[in-house]
Amino acid sequence: MDFSYDARTEELRERLGAFMDECVYPAEPQLAAELADPARDRWAIPPVVAGLREQARARGLWNLFLPGELGAGLTNLQYAPLAEITGRSVLLAPPALNCAAPDTGNMELLAQFGDEAQKKQWLEPLLAGEIRSAFAMTEPEVASSDASNITTRIERDGDEYVVNGRKWYITGAMNPDCRVFIVMGKTDPRGEPHRQQSMILVPRDTPGVTVVRGMTVFGYEDADHGGHAEILFEDVRVPAGNLIGEEGSGFAIAQARLGPGRIHHCMRAIGVAERALELMCRRALDRVAFGRPLADQGVVQEWIAEARVRIEQARLLVLKTAWLMDTVGNRGAHTEIQAIKIAVPAAVEWILDKAVQAHGAAGVSQDSPLAQLWAGNRTLRLADGPDEVHRRSLARRELKRYRTREA
Amino acid sequence: MDFSYDARTEELRERLGAFMDECVYPAEPQLAAELADPARDRWAIPPVVAGLREQARARGLWNLFLPGELGAGLTNLQYAPLAEITGRSVLLAPPALNCAAPDTGNMELLAQFGDEAQKKQWLEPLLAGEIRSAFAMTEPEVASSDASNITTRIERDGDEYVVNGRKWYITGAMNPDCRVFIVMGKTDPRGEPHRQQSMILVPRDTPGVTVVRGMTVFGYEDADHGGHAEILFEDVRVPAGNLIGEEGSGFAIAQARLGPGRIHHCMRAIGVAERALELMCRRALDRVAFGRPLADQGVVQEWIAEARVRIEQARLLVLKTAWLMDTVGNRGAHTEIQAIKIAVPAAVEWILDKAVQAHGAAGVSQDSPLAQLWAGNRTLRLADGPDEVHRRSLARRELKRYRTREA
Amino acid sequence: MDFSYDARTEELRERLGAFMDECVYPAEPQLAAELADPARDRWAIPPVVAGLREQARARGLWNLFLPGELGAGLTNLQYAPLAEITGRSVLLAPPALNCAAPDTGNMELLAQFGDEAQKKQWLEPLLAGEIRSAFAMTEPEVASSDASNITTRIERDGDEYVVNGRKWYITGAMNPDCRVFIVMGKTDPRGEPHRQQSMILVPRDTPGVTVVRGMTVFGYEDADHGGHAEILFEDVRVPAGNLIGEEGSGFAIAQARLGPGRIHHCMRAIGVAERALELMCRRALDRVAFGRPLADQGVVQEWIAEARVRIEQARLLVLKTAWLMDTVGNRGAHTEIQAIKIAVPAAVEWILDKAVQAHGAAGVSQDSPLAQLWAGNRTLRLADGPDEVHRRSLARRELKRYRTREA
Amino acid sequence: MDFSYDARTEELRERLGAFMDECVYPAEPQLAAELADPARDRWAIPPVVAGLREQARARGLWNLFLPGELGAGLTNLQYAPLAEITGRSVLLAPPALNCAAPDTGNMELLAQFGDEAQKKQWLEPLLAGEIRSAFAMTEPEVASSDASNITTRIERDGDEYVVNGRKWYITGAMNPDCRVFIVMGKTDPRGEPHRQQSMILVPRDTPGVTVVRGMTVFGYEDADHGGHAEILFEDVRVPAGNLIGEEGSGFAIAQARLGPGRIHHCMRAIGVAERALELMCRRALDRVAFGRPLADQGVVQEWIAEARVRIEQARLLVLKTAWLMDTVGNRGAHTEIQAIKIAVPAAVEWILDKAVQAHGAAGVSQDSPLAQLWAGNRTLRLADGPDEVHRRSLARRELKRYRTREA
Repeated sequence: MDFSYDARTEELRERLGAFMDECVYPAEPQLAAELADPARDRWAIPPVVAGLREQARARGLWNLFLPGELGAGLTNLQYAPLAEITGRSVLLAPPALNCAAPDTGNMELLAQFGDEAQKKQWLEPLLAGEIRSAFAMTEPEVASSDASNITTRIERDGDEYVVNGRKWYITGAMNPDCRVFIVMGKTDPRGEPHRQQSMILVPRDTPGVTVVRGMTVFGYEDADHGGHAEILFEDVRVPAGNLIGEEGSGFAIAQARLGPGRIHHCMRAIGVAERALELMCRRALDRVAFGRPLADQGVVQEWIAEARVRIEQARLLVLKTAWLMDTVGNRGAHTEIQAIKIAVPAAVEWILDKAVQAHGAAGVSQDSPLAQLWAGNRTLRLADGPDEVHRRSLARRELKRYRTREA
Repeated sequence: MDFSYDARTEELRERLGAFMDECVYPAEPQLAAELADPARDRWAIPPVVAGLREQARARGLWNLFLPGELGAGLTNLQYAPLAEITGRSVLLAPPALNCAAPDTGNMELLAQFGDEAQKKQWLEPLLAGEIRSAFAMTEPEVASSDASNITTRIERDGDEYVVNGRKWYITGAMNPDCRVFIVMGKTDPRGEPHRQQSMILVPRDTPGVTVVRGMTVFGYEDADHGGHAEILFEDVRVPAGNLIGEEGSGFAIAQARLGPGRIHHCMRAIGVAERALELMCRRALDRVAFGRPLADQGVVQEWIAEARVRIEQARLLVLKTAWLMDTVGNRGAHTEIQAIKIAVPAAVEWILDKAVQAHGAAGVSQDSPLAQLWAGNRTLRLADGPDEVHRRSLARRELKRYRTREA
Repeated sequence: MDFSYDARTEELRERLGAFMDECVYPAEPQLAAELADPARDRWAIPPVVAGLREQARARGLWNLFLPGELGAGLTNLQYAPLAEITGRSVLLAPPALNCAAPDTGNMELLAQFGDEAQKKQWLEPLLAGEIRSAFAMTEPEVASSDASNITTRIERDGDEYVVNGRKWYITGAMNPDCRVFIVMGKTDPRGEPHRQQSMILVPRDTPGVTVVRGMTVFGYEDADHGGHAEILFEDVRVPAGNLIGEEGSGFAIAQARLGPGRIHHCMRAIGVAERALELMCRRALDRVAFGRPLADQGVVQEWIAEARVRIEQARLLVLKTAWLMDTVGNRGAHTEIQAIKIAVPAAVEWILDKAVQAHGAAGVSQDSPLAQLWAGNRTLRLADGPDEVHRRSLARRELKRYRTREA
Repeated sequence: MDFSYDARTEELRERLGAFMDECVYPAEPQLAAELADPARDRWAIPPVVAGLREQARARGLWNLFLPGELGAGLTNLQYAPLAEITGRSVLLAPPALNCAAPDTGNMELLAQFGDEAQKKQWLEPLLAGEIRSAFAMTEPEVASSDASNITTRIERDGDEYVVNGRKWYITGAMNPDCRVFIVMGKTDPRGEPHRQQSMILVPRDTPGVTVVRGMTVFGYEDADHGGHAEILFEDVRVPAGNLIGEEGSGFAIAQARLGPGRIHHCMRAIGVAERALELMCRRALDRVAFGRPLADQGVVQEWIAEARVRIEQARLLVLKTAWLMDTVGNRGAHTEIQAIKIAVPAAVEWILDKAVQAHGAAGVSQDSPLAQLWAGNRTLRLADGPDEVHRRSLARRELKRYRTREA
């Protein structure tokens, strides 16, 4: 057992740290200004991001998330601490490195399951950062954490597939640069539960696609990263070659996509928590109430200590999960992936809440990043299956150990 | 001891309930539509409110909050259950009844401390619902829960006072119909701590007043009730007669205003919680996951039971506090007012969080009121002094009982 | 709505308060000494109690719990604040007043459902404080919160009933003065679920009764109030006249007994919490760490404030429940009885935990009452049905409101 | 970074696991029987332990805790997972392996700070398991988490030191085999705060030593491991050579002792939690309520999942702390040692509480180990400094990072 990062990770952490200090943190006020500009193109990626992307690329900080030859070739364990660092400026750093969800998951999916034509058409420009993409799974009318509930239809008709359905909370899809949607739907609604679903590539400009509106998250449109769209698919026809993998493989592909997606979210969330703790400490040192800085007040000290303790535990569990994914595979790490999905957002939410409280009115305002970070993190407790679903599944696995022994 | 409402309260609850059922709930979609209209005058009160105000007035549901002859003459105990009912549709019902903060507190303040001229000029049109008002106390640069920190200056110069300072989170002030600000500032910064402050009426259109921007609350502008403004006062001159009460009475007036203000907030918050619990129950009955309605799942049942238990306790504490205010006065109820200020928003936050969770993505979206209600309620944990300040003060009072006995 | 106690309650509170100050609190060290005496008769009621009982009787503080002519004739609402006061010295005051569980519940049961012979033989000496009794419902082998699980058999055989079964946690039964057990068992195991059970009186000295051992509660034997016995019934024969009510009425009698039993527990628990808060305050004022009394430290102040807030809410909910029981009956107050069963022990546990923490090692020791109070209170979360059962039932009732409306 | 155990650890885990399965778990009922025997020598180590000690020694499972040549020579990281396993049967396994507190800490202390004579006289028989020892630091009258509060005096008088003071909660000291106490007292009460204290060896049979009584922990005497004594030292004279280290080194020695002591406690506590979770799962599978096993009920599943998630996080933090102690020393790991001191007992308490709840009355009784485990674990939140002290210290260190940068 060894808790130190390896040499490559350390080198990249240093390089990334320098990028954050020299480019990203200084760009935060610029982002705020661009977003506040009433004349801005509402859903476009803010210009400041483009500049950062050039910088990141020049510094060899590009596509770090992607294993194998197409990407930086890092293991999950190597990437995790880097993802954490990007979480410290979560609106800027992940897109700057071409490491932002949902493109990361989509690129992994295409790299793993796409055929050559699909890779050429969509993966290459995504890797090059020329276009963006979205992942259209969640539906408004059903509990889509249970994939058997999905109502969107993908029907074969000659050389084409016809897509019909309504999706929402499709992150990134309001951005006009988001050129393609990976849509989950049913090709065989009467098949066995986990073979009913397929995934298909639907270009944004296909007739029958309507991007209805941006959904909000506690009042935030999240326009800086393309919002969260409601999308209507009405008799949308795409070539049969747009199907990813084979008919019936949609559930399996989704599962394969979700594991890495969850750990990336968790690792960035720990960076969010570190940033929040730093802001809380600085505020506590700065702000005087009733004759003493907040930093001298016992209750605030408890928040700070407890935040540190929770962060350390959360980070270790994420790192161990990454290590398991690298050594025994995503299936072998299933329980741990569920565990971090449950534990990390809850810990980060607690910390953000206390950081908000230490900031008073500023904490809920647009003058601090905390409220928006809180809102983004809150969704992690229900995205990709609510906590309750994961807890039940995790408990069943735990109980199984004793069921088996008993028998 | 008798836990039943008196006859007048029951009669008004019934009348108000009918108004909610017949007018307010049906108007909610209309409000949403008006607010979503991109062509709308951003900070104006939505037209649907005006219609409801007429209806409320016609039904004798007007100015219920105000004791004495100028208002409905209800006690706190009589008004509390009515305020709760308005909390069930908190964006519509309070303004419909001319019972929305901050106007309520301002009207009480003018009724109690204003002179005849001030009443004529400002209280009358407020009571008639012709104008709106704001209360400018919080400042961005200091912990203004400690009034001795206030930096805004109110200086006498001949027949005038000159106001200089910066305020923020001035609720309602973005609304162009908000014609007057009650500003808290220091007339005597070297006086004894609780005699330094004064309050003064500043008409919106006075030269030197700049309404800088709307502050957000977790992404919400709250434009429907006039937003939360940052306001700059630069050499703002008003007649000396605009001072409320006398120089040095600002702290005492603020204290007098806050007691009723807090209990109104708490009572409405309980209505919010009731609404959230109803939405959670309906969703739980409606939504199926993994083969069973959420309503049949143990974890959701725990949320519902716990929500009910917390609401019952919170309501009783608010009602007892109202009764104490009526029988021993606001000072005698000081501890209880602090207790509800601590207990109620925390309970309501917990319930809203669970209701959001039961709704999945819909819960954080604009399609349910829950996320906005959560954000509004969250601010109660830091507005008018953060919980931590109230807990400390409450603890000292508790400890004093034993200090005294010991001596 | 009126939150003041009525005149009779106030008079009794005063009289009881004087008794506590003059007799009960001063007797606490005596009780501790008697219990620590290795020569003492292990399961007997300590002698100090007998002295207090005489005093209480002389002062007209006897059988306050019992409504009607046989007792003090108080309503639940009148008795509740008195029960709270006895909770402040919960090992001494309730037995001193002949108001200790389980005798209170047993006396109510006999008063309500016993026939004349049963009343004469058992109720009279219980009311006179000459004997003690126990209530034998819980069984070791089954989840007896679900009465259909009960395995004890009560079988008719000629003029007799024959009882077979094993019970445990039968409070008070280790005390040799405990002369009679009210035993719950099945007379008709194949009947409809709530008509299978009956209750029967079994004198302690009946052949076939074996008091096996005293069960402990977190290490406490609770010998001062007769411990918690495991009892084996093997072919125990009692006259048919010992059956209470009729065959099949056991479940209904149990329900009738539990309502008042629960509210008494809750009200005393609030007295426990008040005592714990007092001890915490005194300790905080007394103890210096790192240069300042604990009372000046923010974290301890938070505990104290939060304790006060929780107590106030818990008490009001208990009082309202008592009022409902008086006005609409125990059935009408069913939801509220469940609510206090859930809310009160949890609040009191939290307060006791903090009081222990403020006392350091003394808090877990025999030198303070806190640890034993904690242990006693902890059992309330699982006695008479664990919280989880009550939450589920309460949630179902809440959900039903919307189910009905929907239909 | 590598999360797998090394070969030596794996080999020892296997060997220890076999010992647990073959000897320790089967001996648990024997221990219970011996402790329940009224004829037993109340404070003596139960005979079953002696048998296990022989077995453990024969299997090469002896003094595993001790680094260096005198012990098994394991690093903290190697020992931690073994200590966890012993925690699964915490009354039997640690003493069986001669790895029970407080002897472990005392042996480490003597190995590190004792002179040759002290080692020969006390360390050798302790290592051989022939005698037991105690560590006398805590005092009843002061907050001894702040060492400057200690009131016990150690005064030089010719060739002797004279000890006067009162200690309590001296674990193990009721055991007649506990032959020596390491006593913390002040040799120089006017010296600088951290140079006032010294430590001295006081044989049990020295005149002036009175073992007053056993202190209880939530009703438990913990007689199986020598109880927790109150000890009075009145003019107790020991040779000057009994002083450990030099005058004034007491504080530093205590700090050196506490680091490893805390991590051992935490690691065993994780074993306790694993055992509790296993018991909870088995009970949940076994027990039927309202027609379904508890294991199928959502609330119980949440407990199980949450328990697993908390255990994983706690274990990783302990292991990382062990690794830090091995690589950067105990001082370098100071923050992490505080973090586990705060985090682990709280997590384990939560799990034990839920396990108790799942067991109903059995959970609080002597028929399951859970209640006693709960009580033992509860003391960890206040032993060796209450959580509040550690949180404050940890927060200050966190805040310092920003103070420094600011300057």
